[in-house]
Amino acid sequence: MYRTHTCGELRVSDDGKRVTLAGWIDRIRDLGGVKFLVLRDRYGKTQLVVNPAVFPQEVISELSREDVVQVTGTVRKRPPEAVTSEPTGEIEVFVEELKILSKSALPPFYPGDDVSEELRLRYRYIDLRSPRMLNNLLVRHKMALAAREYLNSKNFVEIETPYLTKSTPEGARDFLVPSRLKKGNFYALPQSPQLLKQILMISGLDRYFQIVRCFRDEDLRADRQPEFTQIDIEMSFVHMEDVMELSEGLIRHIFKSVGIELPEKFDRITYEEAMEKYGSDKPDRRYGMELVDLAKYFENTDFKVVRSVLDAGGSVKGFKAGKIQMSRKIADEYGEFLKNFGLGGVLWFKVEGGSVVSTTSKFLEREYQAIWKDFGLEEGDVFILAAHDDRERLNEALGALRLKIGKEYVKVSGFDALWVIDFPFLEYNQEEQRYVARHHPFTMPHLEDLERGVEWPKVRAYAYDMVINGFEVGGGSIRIHDREIQEKVFEVIGLSKDEAREKFGFFLEALQYGVPPHGGIAFGLDRLVSIAVGVDNIREVIAFPKTSSGTCLLTGAPSTVSPKQLEEVGIELRSES
Amino acid sequence: MYRTHTCGELRVSDDGKRVTLAGWIDRIRDLGGVKFLVLRDRYGKTQLVVNPAVFPQEVISELSREDVVQVTGTVRKRPPEAVTSEPTGEIEVFVEELKILSKSALPPFYPGDDVSEELRLRYRYIDLRSPRMLNNLLVRHKMALAAREYLNSKNFVEIETPYLTKSTPEGARDFLVPSRLKKGNFYALPQSPQLLKQILMISGLDRYFQIVRCFRDEDLRADRQPEFTQIDIEMSFVHMEDVMELSEGLIRHIFKSVGIELPEKFDRITYEEAMEKYGSDKPDRRYGMELVDLAKYFENTDFKVVRSVLDAGGSVKGFKAGKIQMSRKIADEYGEFLKNFGLGGVLWFKVEGGSVVSTTSKFLEREYQAIWKDFGLEEGDVFILAAHDDRERLNEALGALRLKIGKEYVKVSGFDALWVIDFPFLEYNQEEQRYVARHHPFTMPHLEDLERGVEWPKVRAYAYDMVINGFEVGGGSIRIHDREIQEKVFEVIGLSKDEAREKFGFFLEALQYGVPPHGGIAFGLDRLVSIAVGVDNIREVIAFPKTSSGTCLLTGAPSTVSPKQLEEVGIELRSES
Repeated sequence: MYRTHTCGELRVSDDGKRVTLAGWIDRIRDLGGVKFLVLRDRYGKTQLVVNPAVFPQEVISELSREDVVQVTGTVRKRPPEAVTSEPTGEIEVFVEELKILSKSALPPFYPGDDVSEELRLRYRYIDLRSPRMLNNLLVRHKMALAAREYLNSKNFVEIETPYLTKSTPEGARDFLVPSRLKKGNFYALPQSPQLLKQILMISGLDRYFQIVRCFRDEDLRADRQPEFTQIDIEMSFVHMEDVMELSEGLIRHIFKSVGIELPEKFDRITYEEAMEKYGSDKPDRRYGMELVDLAKYFENTDFKVVRSVLDAGGSVKGFKAGKIQMSRKIADEYGEFLKNFGLGGVLWFKVEGGSVVSTTSKFLEREYQAIWKDFGLEEGDVFILAAHDDRERLNEALGALRLKIGKEYVKVSGFDALWVIDFPFLEYNQEEQRYVARHHPFTMPHLEDLERGVEWPKVRAYAYDMVINGFEVGGGSIRIHDREIQEKVFEVIGLSKDEAREKFGFFLEALQYGVPPHGGIAFGLDRLVSIAVGVDNIREVIAFPKTSSGTCLLTGAPSTVSPKQLEEVGIELRSES
Repeated sequence: MYRTHTCGELRVSDDGKRVTLAGWIDRIRDLGGVKFLVLRDRYGKTQLVVNPAVFPQEVISELSREDVVQVTGTVRKRPPEAVTSEPTGEIEVFVEELKILSKSALPPFYPGDDVSEELRLRYRYIDLRSPRMLNNLLVRHKMALAAREYLNSKNFVEIETPYLTKSTPEGARDFLVPSRLKKGNFYALPQSPQLLKQILMISGLDRYFQIVRCFRDEDLRADRQPEFTQIDIEMSFVHMEDVMELSEGLIRHIFKSVGIELPEKFDRITYEEAMEKYGSDKPDRRYGMELVDLAKYFENTDFKVVRSVLDAGGSVKGFKAGKIQMSRKIADEYGEFLKNFGLGGVLWFKVEGGSVVSTTSKFLEREYQAIWKDFGLEEGDVFILAAHDDRERLNEALGALRLKIGKEYVKVSGFDALWVIDFPFLEYNQEEQRYVARHHPFTMPHLEDLERGVEWPKVRAYAYDMVINGFEVGGGSIRIHDREIQEKVFEVIGLSKDEAREKFGFFLEALQYGVPPHGGIAFGLDRLVSIAVGVDNIREVIAFPKTSSGTCLLTGAPSTVSPKQLEEVGIELRSES
């Protein structure tokens, strides 16, 4: 037996016991010739006393940090002055036998050291030894298990769907896997099990879930990984309300399993409201500073920048930024920030010494005074304004500036959990010059919108996003369960009948054989865990993540393969790139 | 709300309640103008009474099997003569409102119909509606959840390892995934997370598990799928005994969760014993018929077939087949069967009318008599024998014949669970003309064998396979945790230093920084479930399996992709194949 106890287990009640421990040497201290070692494992740390009267100097001097050792000795109470508040802080182990199980070379860094992320990823096995990273993985495990237990208790069945599946290039780019047995053909790694989970509803499974890896071959941003994990859910015979209620219960339960209480009921706001108030469909309301429409204050203004926008049917909006720093330099910076969104610049004023202070106060004194009064500005408060022809762009730009200022000045805490609903069914894709489904083309449109003649671009979808602290943690919809409506939607997003049949023929066929009304949702597990442990970067909650160029710094994947391997699957590298 | 109850829920205590149900029409019967519908969902079936006095004929005649309908009506007790033993068999629902939610076209077959597997896979959503297939998926869900709960209760942490990983072509063939961001490079789908779980031990995770998909691009046999699911486990600071004990507890718990009691302690036999007694390293002992060495009976024989084998240092073995049919024709068939293994043919005798009956009795009467006596043959018992120079081949051939006869004559039940241990570390790969690691090259060899000078081909491994009912359900080993031993093993299996560094360099490097002794095991979930539900074919316990040519008949994967997709990842199809 390698150990009788773990390194986090011994207490003062074990005083006098003979024990065997095994673990990594975390620290070595020398106190008057006696070595104090701290032994570490996943469960904690225990102080060891290695007396030179027991061990020859050669043995002791050979020890170094990160060696894996096994010790046998006697537990004893520490002297009062040496007691610490750590769980094992009242005892130490007086070592009688010591064996080095595995000698460590000098590591490139020690666990928890503040080194570059690149080095941490390269030597992930040292990085993961730090209590912080260990905790991130433990929290992830607990949250996933809690999700499974909750869904199981609600009669959901976890069903594994294939990872080698059919390429359906509607949405993101697929990862491809060449087939050896059917050369010239390819599997695709699933972007999500969307169609198969709907097929499971058609199969009568009634309530499905799966904690499942999904794959998207997109250019990676800070918060994206080529593979990510979803808590994927689908339910039959439900309305939107049922899915949302189940989801709130699930997410509350998951967070509770790691000690976090979320509100009993999540607020709901419409997509339109989210865009109007926060310029974002995933608002973090903890920053306050709601955007407001200011057109009425500028009805009679002569100030050209605003006048021309209003005359062109545009909008003026702004927000009370509160007691932030303001100067011509800062205003210029904010102006540049807004210009990146296509705006002309920023307007602002500050209440200082009981008056309006602004570079534009000589043109807009009256308007600023009215805003000051109506929005209850106090001494030191800054108000930010901007105008633009395109209200959507104005909202987005001001929303982004609101967030930038919020992150600089507002110390937020707690959890803002809400739903965004009533999304438009379509969105215009500038690149492809066509309308695409905002969620996906299997989402049910509001049939009543269609019945009362609303144009497709204005039709709402039965879709819902869950947002926590400004992150979209989950999104779902009620699905189309009628072949005719599904075919109509394919037509609206510009798929010809042939294309629809080629890509989704098996699904259209399945829609013929008795389909229950159904809907579902998918949550991003990486993001949920990162919110729970309070980190922004999801690489911190993934054991072996990839860099933004899709590389695993530990293993060196992706790598070159042998010509034979390529030949076997019937492909070759393109001669020119 | 689509339903107030499921179709498996109503009881006689609900008599008089007004309820709403939704589901599939399973059956339609007409009894004197009144339609009796059976409504089906995942939870059960409920009988509905549709009275023509309530519904116009047009509505009723429109209904057909597999339509999805919603009904509202009143629960009432069935008349005594109509009561059945089904859970809802005492009630029926008198329908007052009826709505077709989704009309079904005439399906290619009805759920549970005895049709070809091809048709069932093509229309998997109809196949999965059968109670049998539904149950298979439910059992799978329960077993996976039970595994997670058990391992969690033993302090194991589920950690997700990447599916886009590094190709290390030692073992089976990898599935490749071309990288777009790093053209000319490829990820590989993992054959198992072997190295990463060892890295997790080096990271101090102490106890890891993962229910994880694994991928092997091999030619598919009946019981193989290109992707399959493993319960993957790794533990630090353990000996073989610890992993085996944990494993037995886990497997017992998993089976118990679906109502199956396995023995409290699994027997252990060595690889050598398994081969000698059953000619297989995954014996199903329920068939009895152990192979025995018969050399001593033939010491003085003149019968040429046996004499020449014994003189060449070969072996004679056989088994008591019991009361099976035997004739010259059957003997010929068994002889042909053994010839496929390279043997010369079969010998046999039968006890009939108190004498030895055999085509070879005139040469071997005395020998057969002695065997009859020693092995206690009774009237009607048949004994099978064979001889061959190569004892291993003889064991395999007789073991296979034993199983063939067993499957024909012995009705087995219950569960035979055992461990096979003391595997040889190496096995000779005829194709590659070299020794390879029988388990994998990270398995710890018996160091004491090496110390006492045993030749590598005879060195045993710290490896163990769990076998249930003749299926290898799991296999594992204690791993090498020392870089020097690991390098030695790479050398023994013929990897040059450069190859070892290129393929496993990151792992060899990790072995330098403090490695706990560790070991683990992996269980095949598909196989465990198939044993629990009593089917041989693992496709029956996988929601969307592939055929033996790697095709998904439902979606049509793999399929061709667009030239643009290939161009983006920098590959093209080979001009000639």
